[in-house]
Amino acid sequence: MVEHDSLPLDTIFHALGDATRRAMLGELAAAPRSVGELAEPFAMSLAAASKHIKVLEKAGLVRREVRGRTHMCSLDPAPLMTADQWLGVYRRFWTGRLDTLEQLLRAEDAPRPPRAVFDQSGSS
Amino acid sequence: MVEHDSLPLDTIFHALGDATRRAMLGELAAAPRSVGELAEPFAMSLAAASKHIKVLEKAGLVRREVRGRTHMCSLDPAPLMTADQWLGVYRRFWTGRLDTLEQLLRAEDAPRPPRAVFDQSGSS
Repeated sequence: MVEHDSLPLDTIFHALGDATRRAMLGELAAAPRSVGELAEPFAMSLAAASKHIKVLEKAGLVRREVRGRTHMCSLDPAPLMTADQWLGVYRRFWTGRLDTLEQLLRAEDAPRPPRAVFDQSGSS
Repeated sequence: MVEHDSLPLDTIFHALGDATRRAMLGELAAAPRSVGELAEPFAMSLAAASKHIKVLEKAGLVRREVRGRTHMCSLDPAPLMTADQWLGVYRRFWTGRLDTLEQLLRAEDAPRPPRAVFDQSGSS
């Protein structure tokens, strides 16, 4: 039940849990890159880069297209949207807190209201 | 540089990459729970639950408070906000696509505009 549905999220978050892989996604957000181009900024071997790319592919974050002898990688943002939707459930925690903070700051700036806001003596 | 800054994100995403730990966060989003209460829905030992909770604590997602013989756990949503901010950079990919889709659907519904929309003959 939970196990079946959450397998993709396991794989997505696992793929995102590595600085090199996140940096690769950052590169691919700009434009598709070959495996060699993805490996270059990290001074790592093609084999090591390929291992990271395979993790990203497994999570559906990267699509690889073979063009002759070059493997071109491109970003598929759909799994990031899945992760974003999961986080969305928790967003109320910080947006709510910021709302409260904003209200407090506004209340401090605002002129003080009169003591008797609700005058119920003249109910007609 | 990248390595130092991204260590917390590594730990956060690693903690989120497990269905049991995500379910525990879901429980804690409702109210604080003891370690025993967190273990219960998963029919797992206290030791196994404690191991998961330690991973969540390491990522800063859970705070543990000792009350007598009970360890009470509560959610700290701050690391989720950090993950949300990282994802925010990529949000343009799907919000942009949805905007485009919406525009296309609206264009299909809308009556066809006349051929010459920009009449520049009468510029005065």
